[in-house]
Amino acid sequence: MSSELTQPASTLEYLRRIESSKLFQGAVIAIIILSALTIGANTYTLPPLFSDTLALLDNAITVFFLVEILFRLGVHPDKKRFLLDGWNLFDTLVVIGSLIPMDNAEVVLLGRLLRVFRVLRLVSVVPELRFLINSLIKAIPRMGYIALLMFIIFYIYAAMGSMFFSSVDETLWGDVAISMLTLFRVATFEDWTDVMYATMESYPLSWLYYLSFIFLTAFVFLNMMIGAILEVMSEEQNAKQAEQAHDEREKMTRQLAEMQSQLTELTALIKARKE
Amino acid sequence: MSSELTQPASTLEYLRRIESSKLFQGAVIAIIILSALTIGANTYTLPPLFSDTLALLDNAITVFFLVEILFRLGVHPDKKRFLLDGWNLFDTLVVIGSLIPMDNAEVVLLGRLLRVFRVLRLVSVVPELRFLINSLIKAIPRMGYIALLMFIIFYIYAAMGSMFFSSVDETLWGDVAISMLTLFRVATFEDWTDVMYATMESYPLSWLYYLSFIFLTAFVFLNMMIGAILEVMSEEQNAKQAEQAHDEREKMTRQLAEMQSQLTELTALIKARKE
Amino acid sequence: MSSELTQPASTLEYLRRIESSKLFQGAVIAIIILSALTIGANTYTLPPLFSDTLALLDNAITVFFLVEILFRLGVHPDKKRFLLDGWNLFDTLVVIGSLIPMDNAEVVLLGRLLRVFRVLRLVSVVPELRFLINSLIKAIPRMGYIALLMFIIFYIYAAMGSMFFSSVDETLWGDVAISMLTLFRVATFEDWTDVMYATMESYPLSWLYYLSFIFLTAFVFLNMMIGAILEVMSEEQNAKQAEQAHDEREKMTRQLAEMQSQLTELTALIKARKE
Amino acid sequence: MSSELTQPASTLEYLRRIESSKLFQGAVIAIIILSALTIGANTYTLPPLFSDTLALLDNAITVFFLVEILFRLGVHPDKKRFLLDGWNLFDTLVVIGSLIPMDNAEVVLLGRLLRVFRVLRLVSVVPELRFLINSLIKAIPRMGYIALLMFIIFYIYAAMGSMFFSSVDETLWGDVAISMLTLFRVATFEDWTDVMYATMESYPLSWLYYLSFIFLTAFVFLNMMIGAILEVMSEEQNAKQAEQAHDEREKMTRQLAEMQSQLTELTALIKARKE
Repeated sequence: MSSELTQPASTLEYLRRIESSKLFQGAVIAIIILSALTIGANTYTLPPLFSDTLALLDNAITVFFLVEILFRLGVHPDKKRFLLDGWNLFDTLVVIGSLIPMDNAEVVLLGRLLRVFRVLRLVSVVPELRFLINSLIKAIPRMGYIALLMFIIFYIYAAMGSMFFSSVDETLWGDVAISMLTLFRVATFEDWTDVMYATMESYPLSWLYYLSFIFLTAFVFLNMMIGAILEVMSEEQNAKQAEQAHDEREKMTRQLAEMQSQLTELTALIKARKE
Repeated sequence: MSSELTQPASTLEYLRRIESSKLFQGAVIAIIILSALTIGANTYTLPPLFSDTLALLDNAITVFFLVEILFRLGVHPDKKRFLLDGWNLFDTLVVIGSLIPMDNAEVVLLGRLLRVFRVLRLVSVVPELRFLINSLIKAIPRMGYIALLMFIIFYIYAAMGSMFFSSVDETLWGDVAISMLTLFRVATFEDWTDVMYATMESYPLSWLYYLSFIFLTAFVFLNMMIGAILEVMSEEQNAKQAEQAHDEREKMTRQLAEMQSQLTELTALIKARKE
Repeated sequence: MSSELTQPASTLEYLRRIESSKLFQGAVIAIIILSALTIGANTYTLPPLFSDTLALLDNAITVFFLVEILFRLGVHPDKKRFLLDGWNLFDTLVVIGSLIPMDNAEVVLLGRLLRVFRVLRLVSVVPELRFLINSLIKAIPRMGYIALLMFIIFYIYAAMGSMFFSSVDETLWGDVAISMLTLFRVATFEDWTDVMYATMESYPLSWLYYLSFIFLTAFVFLNMMIGAILEVMSEEQNAKQAEQAHDEREKMTRQLAEMQSQLTELTALIKARKE
Repeated sequence: MSSELTQPASTLEYLRRIESSKLFQGAVIAIIILSALTIGANTYTLPPLFSDTLALLDNAITVFFLVEILFRLGVHPDKKRFLLDGWNLFDTLVVIGSLIPMDNAEVVLLGRLLRVFRVLRLVSVVPELRFLINSLIKAIPRMGYIALLMFIIFYIYAAMGSMFFSSVDETLWGDVAISMLTLFRVATFEDWTDVMYATMESYPLSWLYYLSFIFLTAFVFLNMMIGAILEVMSEEQNAKQAEQAHDEREKMTRQLAEMQSQLTELTALIKARKE
């Protein structure tokens, strides 16, 4: 592969054009989808012949991905920047992970798990999905402090729950971690009344605990959603229109200022003539 | 029926006026509703007499629909465009489907199924519903890449789930397809803790799998919803107001420019007089 | 009561001032809340003494409401309009309903049911709640055609469901009405997988039926919500700001026009002097 | 501690600088998190040695919090305002509550409960969380009348439910309070069909009761959400942009007025010269 690096510029240019061609991109996407189908097929119990074919196909895909990444690295003008880019790093790691030989059972599962993540290469290759993921990642910090607040609410209720209800049901309220899982279940309304009815037998007022928790989390969540909608809006929405309107008004103000100075000049002129 | 096609223009004009009259539209809608009621009535166990009457009524409705479509085709000025219109094509197919004679059990079910779709003719006949469906269809591509992303998330989690949990519960995690169905169930919060508690016995950390999946899908879904709201907004919202404001500012700028040239002219005039 | 109608204007004026006083309103609200508490207390098993007191109190409340409505009718300047107002009509009906003597068991239940609706008088008496209900009622037509579309989707799926699945579970899919109730259950995600797993045993592909139904209803519902948000927005939102901005620009345009005519006049003046 | 109050200003100034330093704030936050971890650890069954260490640590944390609050009180310029501030009051109460000696079982639980609330000190110490909570509290009154309306709907349905269904299931519909809890369960879609199917055996039409309740609450809730989004929007959204636009237009109007007076003056000047 390294031979490409020493080839003359015209050949490199030609390879680069291949790399950015629709056909090449399409082939890569097709292979990724084939890889996904292979992974899916492996979850079924298959006849030995078909299973062996899949194993062969899997190896072929691994080799293809390896060649593809080396090729893309080879034709990239800046090798360092290529390797530091998050998406390329992810691609490289997933492909290298697939190279681990699968001998004993432990590693087989790890190898198959890494193969699953090859499906994610679809995101790194299709620009629209890449853009989508980037914009989703940008939305995370916006929800940071609300998430912290939610965590505090969960923690306090979980501590209280495990304090009072651990005697009622050890598997649901045994410790603070299990209690948080139980509370998450309550927050998704999943058989939460079963949990409540069980504790209400020992603590008849424990419905207060559940209702206050549901109201708190729903209220915070609702406000978080509204906040998120508003924040994105105030950023993107109207911004262009408002800027355009501002520019137009700026222009008018400048025009007005010019006219005022013209008028002042004119008045001075006339006054001067009068004398 | 073809006799209508050869009738003089004035008769055709008269028939066209009938076709677009409120009375005719109302009659068609009434027959469609009657057809829907017939279909509904057939799901009950009825006395033979009533059942026979329904069968007769059903045939009468089929004939009516056939006559109605042929009539609408007959009076339409452009036969080709009429047949190529999606809604008319749908109407025609549903009505022709009702004509299949129902002899053996297999075809009976198909015939009855096609009769069910006659209710959808209501959508094709009532303009407001047609408009609604059209605007819903327009909303689909907007959600395309998000849906693809969702599918990738489901696929990866399903592959992982079937890899690890198929030994725990074959009916829930047997293969990648069943696992995707199970994950859809988890995404709707439907008895998802039952699924989780079962796998947590073998894999105590599997709550991480479920919680990360729920957070991912909920987060992507929430952002999708916000995105959809914003996209529709930026299209429709404020657009008219902003345009009007822009036009008004444009007008002012023109006025200002005119005044400036007037002033310049005036100054030139006075200067000229001065000399 | 009719004696009030013949009283001199000054007394009537005095009574009217009582009717619109905060004290009178507060008293009525207090009695309604007392009435609500009485209804609530009746759902508990009470000692005979307390129960008898409640019955007495209930009669006293009925008399109070009767007197109150007659009083409000008496002091109202336009008797006809008073009786035709929806809220007053509702109040009158509820109070008259409470007058029905409760002898046999059948009527007792009806009488108690009518007493429950006395709680709704709170809405008719508190202006803020009245305003809220009015604005909610205004929101209904906006959702009319979407609701019709939803009904059509439910009906078609129910007809199909009862056609195929009635052999699987008669209690869930017996006829089109029961099937619609089952589908509503599926739409609320309430143990919907139990319903699906049962039919999947006979029809392995029936998950397609449920998933398509869930996607359709969720998609239509989501778009309905977005539509409702946008519609309310475009009505209320920004309208005031936009109008104010428009007025301000109008004013500027007028100013500019005045100045232009001034300038034209001035130029004419100077030109006239020149000659 | 009171000795600080009599120290010279420069020392006080120095202490104040410590109090507002990032290091001090960080230390307090670290201790609060340590306190939260202690509370969490207590919910596990621990070896005696570790348990004793935790008890010691807990006392140390209590002392630290006491010293910290006294210190903050000491360096605060206005002691009265410090004590009347809601957040400080909350901090003080929680810390004083931790001082109660835990001898008998009853008080132990109360003491542990108060320790749980020490986690909430995180909210009072981190300014971003404080701001978040304040803005959430501001959102409460906005939903006041809607919440009242919701309560009325719940109360009426609960009274009706307990009237009719208490004979079906005493534990679900025994009295108006239990019925409200059951209705809240129905509103969260939690196994609501189980509740409905049970009552439908005695009252076949009771599905009307549940469906109307679900539609009413969902409809009111949806409108409440839309209302909340719109209200926040009209307050915060566009307000800055609109104000800026208004200011810019104001400036232009002033400029125009000045120019008009200049023009008037100029015209007067020329007219005067003419004569």
